[in-house]
Amino acid sequence: MGEFKNRITVTIYDQHYTIIGEEEPSHIRHVAGLVDMRIREVSKYNAGLDTSRKAVLTAVNIMDDYVKLQEKYEDLLAKYESEGQGPVND
Amino acid sequence: MGEFKNRITVTIYDQHYTIIGEEEPSHIRHVAGLVDMRIREVSKYNAGLDTSRKAVLTAVNIMDDYVKLQEKYEDLLAKYESEGQGPVND
Repeated sequence: MGEFKNRITVTIYDQHYTIIGEEEPSHIRHVAGLVDMRIREVSKYNAGLDTSRKAVLTAVNIMDDYVKLQEKYEDLLAKYESEGQGPVND
Repeated sequence: MGEFKNRITVTIYDQHYTIIGEEEPSHIRHVAGLVDMRIREVSKYNAGLDTSRKAVLTAVNIMDDYVKLQEKYEDLLAKYESEGQGPVND
């Protein structure tokens, strides 16, 4: 299953992209839709920038979210692991 | 503190960007460095694409990671919350 590569065409900021990968088409379309939304958000406040710079700033925004979520995940994991061990009884 | 806006210039894929935000400069530089690395990775396998398309594909890759991490976080949170309540005793 995992070795089968899907070839999906998506539209992001009015440009077509062919994405090749092992992911489900529905997942790829969902991800592409989120990126399209984020580029349009950036464009609203940076209308003067060219598409390349808008796309880089979009990537920065998404990476910012990713790094913050990663910290949140690691905090929760540490909490889960420490509480999961339970109290130490003498 | 939170209302003070930092103005940081970063270099991503040989272009300068001024990022204005409430984030710590070190955080912004870290995020920009990760994006630079990811664009260079995409470029290695898509040398023929223009910068705009490379940046959009980079944004797609990062969003893919974000969506997957979000699912992982939600699974862990559900596990943490269900176990935290402890077993129900009749």
